[in-house]
Amino acid sequence: MTNSLLNDRDTEFLLYEFLDTEALLQRPRYKEHSREVFDATLKTARTIAEKFFANHNAKGDANEPNFDGEKIQMIAETKQSWDALSEAGFLAGHCNFDEGGMQLPKAIISTALGYVSAANIASACYPFLTIAAANLLRSFASDSLKAQFLPQMLDGRFAGTMALTEPDQGSALADIRTSAEQAEDGSYRIRGQKMYISGGDQSLTENIVHLVLAKIKGAPAGVKGISLFLVPKMLLDENGQVAQPNDVKLAGLLHKMGFRNTTSTVLSFGEDQGAVGYLIGEPHQGLKYMFQMMNEARISVGAGASILGYQGYAYSLQYAKDRPQGRLPSNQDPSAKQVPIIQHADIRRMLLMQKAYAEGGLGLSMYATSLYEDQHSAPTEEESQLAATLLDLITPVVKSWPSKYCLKANELAIQVLGGAGYIREFPLEQLYRDNRLNAIHEGTEGIHALDLLARKVPSKNFQAYQLLQTEIRKTVLEARQKESLVSMADTLEESLQKLDETGMALFTQLQEDVDRGLSNATLYLDVFGCIMVAWIWLRQAVIAANALEGTTSEEDGNFYRGKLHTALFYFEWELPNIQPQISLLQSGNNLPFDMRVDWF
Amino acid sequence: MTNSLLNDRDTEFLLYEFLDTEALLQRPRYKEHSREVFDATLKTARTIAEKFFANHNAKGDANEPNFDGEKIQMIAETKQSWDALSEAGFLAGHCNFDEGGMQLPKAIISTALGYVSAANIASACYPFLTIAAANLLRSFASDSLKAQFLPQMLDGRFAGTMALTEPDQGSALADIRTSAEQAEDGSYRIRGQKMYISGGDQSLTENIVHLVLAKIKGAPAGVKGISLFLVPKMLLDENGQVAQPNDVKLAGLLHKMGFRNTTSTVLSFGEDQGAVGYLIGEPHQGLKYMFQMMNEARISVGAGASILGYQGYAYSLQYAKDRPQGRLPSNQDPSAKQVPIIQHADIRRMLLMQKAYAEGGLGLSMYATSLYEDQHSAPTEEESQLAATLLDLITPVVKSWPSKYCLKANELAIQVLGGAGYIREFPLEQLYRDNRLNAIHEGTEGIHALDLLARKVPSKNFQAYQLLQTEIRKTVLEARQKESLVSMADTLEESLQKLDETGMALFTQLQEDVDRGLSNATLYLDVFGCIMVAWIWLRQAVIAANALEGTTSEEDGNFYRGKLHTALFYFEWELPNIQPQISLLQSGNNLPFDMRVDWF
Repeated sequence: MTNSLLNDRDTEFLLYEFLDTEALLQRPRYKEHSREVFDATLKTARTIAEKFFANHNAKGDANEPNFDGEKIQMIAETKQSWDALSEAGFLAGHCNFDEGGMQLPKAIISTALGYVSAANIASACYPFLTIAAANLLRSFASDSLKAQFLPQMLDGRFAGTMALTEPDQGSALADIRTSAEQAEDGSYRIRGQKMYISGGDQSLTENIVHLVLAKIKGAPAGVKGISLFLVPKMLLDENGQVAQPNDVKLAGLLHKMGFRNTTSTVLSFGEDQGAVGYLIGEPHQGLKYMFQMMNEARISVGAGASILGYQGYAYSLQYAKDRPQGRLPSNQDPSAKQVPIIQHADIRRMLLMQKAYAEGGLGLSMYATSLYEDQHSAPTEEESQLAATLLDLITPVVKSWPSKYCLKANELAIQVLGGAGYIREFPLEQLYRDNRLNAIHEGTEGIHALDLLARKVPSKNFQAYQLLQTEIRKTVLEARQKESLVSMADTLEESLQKLDETGMALFTQLQEDVDRGLSNATLYLDVFGCIMVAWIWLRQAVIAANALEGTTSEEDGNFYRGKLHTALFYFEWELPNIQPQISLLQSGNNLPFDMRVDWF
Repeated sequence: MTNSLLNDRDTEFLLYEFLDTEALLQRPRYKEHSREVFDATLKTARTIAEKFFANHNAKGDANEPNFDGEKIQMIAETKQSWDALSEAGFLAGHCNFDEGGMQLPKAIISTALGYVSAANIASACYPFLTIAAANLLRSFASDSLKAQFLPQMLDGRFAGTMALTEPDQGSALADIRTSAEQAEDGSYRIRGQKMYISGGDQSLTENIVHLVLAKIKGAPAGVKGISLFLVPKMLLDENGQVAQPNDVKLAGLLHKMGFRNTTSTVLSFGEDQGAVGYLIGEPHQGLKYMFQMMNEARISVGAGASILGYQGYAYSLQYAKDRPQGRLPSNQDPSAKQVPIIQHADIRRMLLMQKAYAEGGLGLSMYATSLYEDQHSAPTEEESQLAATLLDLITPVVKSWPSKYCLKANELAIQVLGGAGYIREFPLEQLYRDNRLNAIHEGTEGIHALDLLARKVPSKNFQAYQLLQTEIRKTVLEARQKESLVSMADTLEESLQKLDETGMALFTQLQEDVDRGLSNATLYLDVFGCIMVAWIWLRQAVIAANALEGTTSEEDGNFYRGKLHTALFYFEWELPNIQPQISLLQSGNNLPFDMRVDWF
């Protein structure tokens, strides 16, 4: 049994029912496209994913890249996958025609690349990082730097990385020690060590463009002294051709639990004469620029986590339909035929939970995608600003919720299979290992919780937060039109009210003692996320209820009833789990804060 | 930084404060022992664990056993660990002096072997299975079979396995197909395939004693037709010496996510002339006998899961104390010194959760151990019966609760370390992979839930269940004597009341429709377990509160305050999470049961 990639019916639902991607054809940027172009693009991506990525997902895990002292040895399929994707133009899929791109909407590109993640998230990491790095250059690099590096990144000759973390500095970027000193030619000499750099070395491309955070000598302390540099692995000659190696050395590979076919590297910059680096934008503004790439990567992480959750769901569902085992409790006849395990209610519980998490997470990611789209192509500046504001607010949630719950989905997928779920002869244990990374990279859950509570929510006098509430209340009103959805609509409205009260309680606590007031931020992030996903499910339920009122095929009928039942399950079985956390937050229960180090 | 094995202070607490293991010295069986003997035994076990097991925990994971076509290749350290443990007499540690054993109490042996699990749970699996298999033979095999096989199992020349599962039958043992046919000499010929057999082949011992479930031809259908056979890998000659191979073939190795140094095998019995097997006990009573071994293994699984949780907790605690990163939110000075991450409240939350789970799980396991002890050595038959009744009731909980929550503890341990937690250069990701097995083997969570709700609780008109309530209420009364514990005592009493009401609601539902009534059994198991662990924590809190009233050293003071604070954390942060599940159970919410297959 092989795992199919995503599900066509669900993909169609997300793109054309949950989002109205076809409506984008009215916008000037997409006027030359059509639904047929969108669908053909997806089909191409799916074919590439199946042929060039799915083929070595397990193989890349079992034969991870290793360093032979001279170069990184990788299985040949990894380069074939890179080449296939870049040759089909997907590295520039979102770029404008005049950049050589396909000028496609974000939702289409995300879904196209979603197939690639579903097939092999580790090999997908190289193109994903390259796309995000190229976007950063497009936004902030000088024309001359862009001219030198961008075309090769968009056509697959060069790859990109983000080099932030250092051996002594993970989450605390303010304390990075990598230094930059200007040379006579105006370029900089970079010195320092970076760690956990994904794709920091590989054998896929003739060059690697590292985007490196460093501090120019004499810069202010903390984040206000961080600048961003483009540091290529190979220096270019005057004709823009790859010439000699820069002073960037691989200090070692790190060996991950999952995501193994993505190299994770320790890189030494400037051990000898200093690595040549080119300043991007203004000095000391580096973190601001890097946030564009980080935020893009964060949304990508949430989508990836959801997709891994979805793959586990789809596989365990098929297994549960196929595998006979035991009988219902009411059947005591040992000679009666065994039933497929999906007939056991506990198996259906585990499948429903997975469906609620994976399709909830995917919906949330697609919603973020639509905000990104509006930010960049909405007809009015006002709409564009609103979308940007909302996206900024929800990015910590979009990154964190799927990373937590879709890992849980994978844990359940393993449990559905039992022993078979635990062995490498089946694909589920790898999904689980791969997915465990997502709550860590691009900012741990705790970091995002602080970001949400301390910055994003109170920002501009709660402007974005109010905006989100308004959006959610629109769905509540819509849902109230359907009798079958009234109860969910009421519950969501009550939850919004509780979220308000909780936020107010926390901001009061914060003003008294900021350390204590922020100490339960992770609970707040979780509550916030669970309520947002309730909204996503109610939106899906509204669509399903409307569709069921029209004529539908039996297959569509089942699809929409499944959406409705899962929405109900989410509201009745999942959402109530936030209540104990809300109580802790509102009462200012600070037991973890009060735990003393010497009591552990 | 290496991980120490368990924690001496905690071990002492569990053995001599939480349990009163010294009081066992009054019992005739232990009159020749002393506290010094107990402690020396533990020290020996710890030394062996450190020297012979911890040394290859990571190595055995990275170099798992493989089959070269003739024999299983294993790293040499595995056999050295087996030899060291068996030469020190631990395979017979619990056996009587006249069997060549050390006649030690269960709590001492469990703790001794706990060090071994903490050091290397995969290599520990071989001796653990052998001990449980030998116990089964001691209880049910004929004197002649015992004489032939038992001495070699107790001194380490032979190992033991349990062979239940088949490729087509996992949880549904009623449907096994392995057959047995009596031969002229009175022995049987066994034919069939067994799967997921841990230690089913290895290179540690000259023989392997497989305890195999099979059906004698013509036996009744279902579990009433299952018999138990001893099927050696190598047949013995008339002098009891290993002679020629039996017809048992290794069909293949399975490759697990964790627990890798324990072989997991597919075995073919009787492909040629039929494997020679010897009936244990009476025909068709095999499952009853096997339950002794399964139950012993189940308690062992719960303990193992707790120990892995504990190891992760201890490691991440040390890391959190050592690793500087960032500053408190109240400190905005980027030039101020960074703080160890344990100063961040969210890290303390993750450490407290781990402590609550791991020490709660360990306490639960030790309580089960004390019941086992009383069952076998209590002064009166009545006490012995009571203990057996209680142990039978709580076995599904003792197996399942730690398997779920201590995996969560390991997930949190990884999160405390961030990127370092995710790479194989640090020990946490292996703990997490190893621990994922525990919710699967020896019966999945769902199977234990059905066992608890459908069999154990209602058994004998709720006799065992009432008994447990009585035990728990004793602690409630004790706790009421301390003002600081009154609130926890009240909460526990209310929880017991809710458990009663929930049970009653479920039994009403069950009588109307058994399939529907059992459909939420896993939630009930979880609620039951969380309340039991609340009791375990309240017991620890009572001891701590009493100790703090006397004179204690500063170190002991911190230890007991830590216990009290964690008990409070469990009651205020963990236990409330059962409320939404109680509501679902009491209201008879059956959404998973009602989900239709074609809606997925």
